[in-house]
Amino acid sequence: MARLDDLVRWMNEELNLSEVPDYSGAMNGLQLANSGEVNKVATAVDASLPVFEKAVAAGADLLIVHHGMFWQGAQMLTGANYKKIKLAMDNDMAVYSAHIPLDVHPLFGNNACLAREIGMSDAQPYFPWKGIQLGLKQNMEISRDELRARLEKAVGGPVHVCPAGPEKVGMVGLITGGAGSEVQAMADAGIQTYITGEGQHWTYPLAEELGVNLFYAGHYATETFGVNALSEVLSGKFKLAKEAIIHPTGL
Amino acid sequence: MARLDDLVRWMNEELNLSEVPDYSGAMNGLQLANSGEVNKVATAVDASLPVFEKAVAAGADLLIVHHGMFWQGAQMLTGANYKKIKLAMDNDMAVYSAHIPLDVHPLFGNNACLAREIGMSDAQPYFPWKGIQLGLKQNMEISRDELRARLEKAVGGPVHVCPAGPEKVGMVGLITGGAGSEVQAMADAGIQTYITGEGQHWTYPLAEELGVNLFYAGHYATETFGVNALSEVLSGKFKLAKEAIIHPTGL
Amino acid sequence: MARLDDLVRWMNEELNLSEVPDYSGAMNGLQLANSGEVNKVATAVDASLPVFEKAVAAGADLLIVHHGMFWQGAQMLTGANYKKIKLAMDNDMAVYSAHIPLDVHPLFGNNACLAREIGMSDAQPYFPWKGIQLGLKQNMEISRDELRARLEKAVGGPVHVCPAGPEKVGMVGLITGGAGSEVQAMADAGIQTYITGEGQHWTYPLAEELGVNLFYAGHYATETFGVNALSEVLSGKFKLAKEAIIHPTGL
Amino acid sequence: MARLDDLVRWMNEELNLSEVPDYSGAMNGLQLANSGEVNKVATAVDASLPVFEKAVAAGADLLIVHHGMFWQGAQMLTGANYKKIKLAMDNDMAVYSAHIPLDVHPLFGNNACLAREIGMSDAQPYFPWKGIQLGLKQNMEISRDELRARLEKAVGGPVHVCPAGPEKVGMVGLITGGAGSEVQAMADAGIQTYITGEGQHWTYPLAEELGVNLFYAGHYATETFGVNALSEVLSGKFKLAKEAIIHPTGL
Amino acid sequence: MARLDDLVRWMNEELNLSEVPDYSGAMNGLQLANSGEVNKVATAVDASLPVFEKAVAAGADLLIVHHGMFWQGAQMLTGANYKKIKLAMDNDMAVYSAHIPLDVHPLFGNNACLAREIGMSDAQPYFPWKGIQLGLKQNMEISRDELRARLEKAVGGPVHVCPAGPEKVGMVGLITGGAGSEVQAMADAGIQTYITGEGQHWTYPLAEELGVNLFYAGHYATETFGVNALSEVLSGKFKLAKEAIIHPTGL
Amino acid sequence: MARLDDLVRWMNEELNLSEVPDYSGAMNGLQLANSGEVNKVATAVDASLPVFEKAVAAGADLLIVHHGMFWQGAQMLTGANYKKIKLAMDNDMAVYSAHIPLDVHPLFGNNACLAREIGMSDAQPYFPWKGIQLGLKQNMEISRDELRARLEKAVGGPVHVCPAGPEKVGMVGLITGGAGSEVQAMADAGIQTYITGEGQHWTYPLAEELGVNLFYAGHYATETFGVNALSEVLSGKFKLAKEAIIHPTGL
Repeated sequence: MARLDDLVRWMNEELNLSEVPDYSGAMNGLQLANSGEVNKVATAVDASLPVFEKAVAAGADLLIVHHGMFWQGAQMLTGANYKKIKLAMDNDMAVYSAHIPLDVHPLFGNNACLAREIGMSDAQPYFPWKGIQLGLKQNMEISRDELRARLEKAVGGPVHVCPAGPEKVGMVGLITGGAGSEVQAMADAGIQTYITGEGQHWTYPLAEELGVNLFYAGHYATETFGVNALSEVLSGKFKLAKEAIIHPTGL
Repeated sequence: MARLDDLVRWMNEELNLSEVPDYSGAMNGLQLANSGEVNKVATAVDASLPVFEKAVAAGADLLIVHHGMFWQGAQMLTGANYKKIKLAMDNDMAVYSAHIPLDVHPLFGNNACLAREIGMSDAQPYFPWKGIQLGLKQNMEISRDELRARLEKAVGGPVHVCPAGPEKVGMVGLITGGAGSEVQAMADAGIQTYITGEGQHWTYPLAEELGVNLFYAGHYATETFGVNALSEVLSGKFKLAKEAIIHPTGL
Repeated sequence: MARLDDLVRWMNEELNLSEVPDYSGAMNGLQLANSGEVNKVATAVDASLPVFEKAVAAGADLLIVHHGMFWQGAQMLTGANYKKIKLAMDNDMAVYSAHIPLDVHPLFGNNACLAREIGMSDAQPYFPWKGIQLGLKQNMEISRDELRARLEKAVGGPVHVCPAGPEKVGMVGLITGGAGSEVQAMADAGIQTYITGEGQHWTYPLAEELGVNLFYAGHYATETFGVNALSEVLSGKFKLAKEAIIHPTGL
Repeated sequence: MARLDDLVRWMNEELNLSEVPDYSGAMNGLQLANSGEVNKVATAVDASLPVFEKAVAAGADLLIVHHGMFWQGAQMLTGANYKKIKLAMDNDMAVYSAHIPLDVHPLFGNNACLAREIGMSDAQPYFPWKGIQLGLKQNMEISRDELRARLEKAVGGPVHVCPAGPEKVGMVGLITGGAGSEVQAMADAGIQTYITGEGQHWTYPLAEELGVNLFYAGHYATETFGVNALSEVLSGKFKLAKEAIIHPTGL
Repeated sequence: MARLDDLVRWMNEELNLSEVPDYSGAMNGLQLANSGEVNKVATAVDASLPVFEKAVAAGADLLIVHHGMFWQGAQMLTGANYKKIKLAMDNDMAVYSAHIPLDVHPLFGNNACLAREIGMSDAQPYFPWKGIQLGLKQNMEISRDELRARLEKAVGGPVHVCPAGPEKVGMVGLITGGAGSEVQAMADAGIQTYITGEGQHWTYPLAEELGVNLFYAGHYATETFGVNALSEVLSGKFKLAKEAIIHPTGL
Repeated sequence: MARLDDLVRWMNEELNLSEVPDYSGAMNGLQLANSGEVNKVATAVDASLPVFEKAVAAGADLLIVHHGMFWQGAQMLTGANYKKIKLAMDNDMAVYSAHIPLDVHPLFGNNACLAREIGMSDAQPYFPWKGIQLGLKQNMEISRDELRARLEKAVGGPVHVCPAGPEKVGMVGLITGGAGSEVQAMADAGIQTYITGEGQHWTYPLAEELGVNLFYAGHYATETFGVNALSEVLSGKFKLAKEAIIHPTGL
């Protein structure tokens, strides 16, 4: 058993919430309080109603998510929104969210975790945004097929590829989540092979013209790592039970 | 006992929520659901924690307010915000909010109610804003002192006056709430005596230069009428108990 | 053989370019001129370099596309951009683009064509945007599985589904291309089952909470119909050869 | 007798006009010239017509104000505006205005002066805005009632209080004028008791929820200090007569 | 002798100030009052200090200008600005300004007056802007040289020409003042020969590429007509002396 | 003969394109590629069709311009735009553009070149904009007539003057091109005599009121220097033929 306040303070500091920039809708930190104590931590990518139901069923009193509840701004507490908050409050479950701080953290970050999985053993931060570096990059001497095989193993499913770059992947850039729209910026930054979660249709023909290999490895699939890595350390340090909620979107 | 859905549908239609414009932060309509039934309606100007506590103590399962919970945009459900929602959910109290629709309604509107109280027996809508008329006006053959006396009786307290206009009030304009900043527009529209709830310091010297009588009758004090008039009709029609929550700010 | 001017004039009028709204990057109409004559028309979804190469190889002197060359604003005529324009000019191939006018046209539109393919025999325009209706809707008495089967046959490949709505599809809305982000608006408009081309990851959990069936049938795959239907009529009327360029992105 | 140029140069430097930020409407500095000489200085909070009349009646040839003539942007020189400028020009009276530079000055500032009056003997600058600190703060070991008594004595009238914070005032923040809307920022900055001039109605329930004591001491009443303190030094240094114009708004 | 109020009311109505749109800096109407009576009207294009000096020297008590005093927003009343207002006030001279209302008036308008001078006997309004038509157009069967000769006679000086359009001027468009930047819009509207006052350097090569004759007849030179035509009628109706102030800029 | 890549790389570095700010429409650098080799360089101020025709006629395979092709954003490749690109591609002529980098370069810059021509032997950078200095200034002990004579000799034609400043020019500021609108900023910066290319009509009366000498030396005429100075060095270093294209606008 631990105090929610202590967990929040530790995570805020560990993830450096006060300094890492983000979109205003992310609203990183404690999004929903509870009565003050935590015994079990659940983790998930999205803060949707089915996820809340699974977390409550698992007996969690703290849910840690990557995508919080407020991306659409203030919303009426009715319908699914009402059910979600009511369910959490009735079961005394708090909700904590961390977005970009949990993408770029050197240890827990989605980028760092996925990089380790695919053998980027010497990845360097790159792609500046508001004073931080959003991605990781490394020169890799492997083939496009080998990289695809590693990625599919890491995310546990098929990876869509636009094979417009070199057969040997060369300078590889990695930004988890929905950063396909940055493909022009990648080419400008010298990236030859770009790994991200998802990208809109137009990013594919653009990658073709830019001559960049573009790997779409799944928005959900590339972002399960961070919350779990954080939970691993948190539960160990504070002696909490933990459970990863599986709720993929296929996107 | 009534169905919350029925009350909400009736109020939405009566107040014409789908057509009356408002500021985006107003978020008119059902802001917080409950389990579906309503026996007692509470009314208040503001949706603050002390108001929720008084409404719950009064046994209300529907709270109708003029200023809803979302003016500051999406907010973490922590601190007072957490307590407020938890208190309402635990006591199965829904919250409904109506702002400008409850200022300008010809029967329930704060404008219409206050106009009746001070003897504007033939008030006409004026001051266009996004396709509606925000205020009421009427030529009145009474003195400034008489108008002040009527206003102080209506709002139950002192009214601050900038006596820069004519001794006989002449063309009187009325907009409840915080519309003092419209004093220039009032002068441009031919208003000689302007009644509103509150105005910033700079509106006083501006009224002096414009030669307009400016009555500051209190933001809270001029906006208790609408929710109570609505509740009067609603509780009668649906056979509900009702209670007005008194929680003035002195502003 | 036909005059390019005549073809352009006929398409501009037929597609009502001067009145149908669009995003500024669409730049509908003749995007690249040629020396004035056309014998063969090629059609494609995207105006990318590989598409230009295929169109030139096919001997086309007019390429009609759905996504034109200027979505990214003014671009240097270097790299792929240079090659593309040079290739077209050297082979005297003009380029004509039509985006939303080719989505919403009652006969040639991507919406209308796909609706026919999946048995929406009485589809009605809906979803207003800048004075037009962006989609088609119809109540359908079929199951979700049946609709999926029809869609997969129509687009010639797998369709991703978020099955959060009713088993019987009910009120079906259809907007081809990348309109997944409109899922909230769909729910607000009473759509129970929403068919579009692509949507970002966050649209899936949102559809779950809204209780809407969401079919992601592919951005490319849902937008091959319009250019080909237009070309069918155009080539018949002006006695031109024609060829559909196949260049899918898998997105 | 002194040269207007010399007075303006001295005040501009003393108040550091070229570096202290402000709202664009403040237009700090010499707002209206005269023929070049000054014998008597008048001071006031607002640059309104009644104030000009009192200053001219007092024989001033320089009027120093806190709120200048241009907050509403360019205005026709007709009506009160015409009378004001004509009156000043006919009586050869110049007008000098300083807003935020006269709030934050360590010696002449409204903040510093009021802080001295209420016994903040060790006040520290706080609340950053565009590179400066807008307020003063200090931990105080007195009761809310004692603070109110000191404030009422300092401003010479009643002070409105929202007593939502601790009985012992603790960390006190002070920003003169109309800064009530910063109450959320005050709570975030650790202020337990916040003194300002005025705030809108909504600041009161917000202070209640934040648990902050909020003192509304009057916009006019908290801003008479600065112009008079400046005039005291200026008139001494340049051997000028001086007079404080009293023209309160009650706000 | 006439009342200033009467002159202003007559001009406001005649020029339809309440309905004709304009840029916010224009501030059409009475910009500076006087003591109430007018005997002599001066007219000028610009409201600059040398113009005020000439108008005062001419004994005017009302100056009518096309470009008023507030285009740069609120300005300190110091330097030239102080001298200008002081000079006018000391000599009891009012200032009235009308910009677009005095460009587009069918009788007094700069457009209409210049059109008459160059033989556009059947000019039609065209070029919509905020609900009005900004220019006049007419098909003319004369040569470019003939048009230039007429223009140079009308404005009393040389006219700069970009002779990129047809030798016979064809469809001629006319917008007085600084509207050269609309040359693309002119071509889009079918204008073959465009007459305006001034245009920036880039408008010349653009006109060359568009194949439009572009006549730069001078901003000042094309805008002396309106104020004088207005003054002609005004002085006749109200029995006032009048004088046109000549103060060209050569631009 | 030289490689286009080498020329572009050398110019980009020499002109510091990656660091010098500009308007987004300038799009400095290689705007149109060719097949890779360059023998002859043409230079011009504007990238218009007549200029392209003259450059092709001169046998150039690289055209260097000051005002590039993209100021109006993305444009259809039809009409003059089509002809221009077709002409260049058919004749294998590349186009390189540099705007502000070619105004402010200490050696090749339009400012530096014109300063040398008129005897500003000790000109200092001034007038900060986005981290660079846009102009050159120097105190000069010569008369206004002498400066005008030097300028007219340098630009090879008449210079329009607003002689509102001192007879001895004093502090002279120089910004080539269309910077007349900065005359207020010049006065604020202590410039007594301001030389630029062009300014709108309103800059003249403003200069009069500010008491600044304003020389309008021609936008085209003040900007022929930079491209030619660059070409001089480039052609020498890479052993290329060169030719200056003369195509003035008179503006």
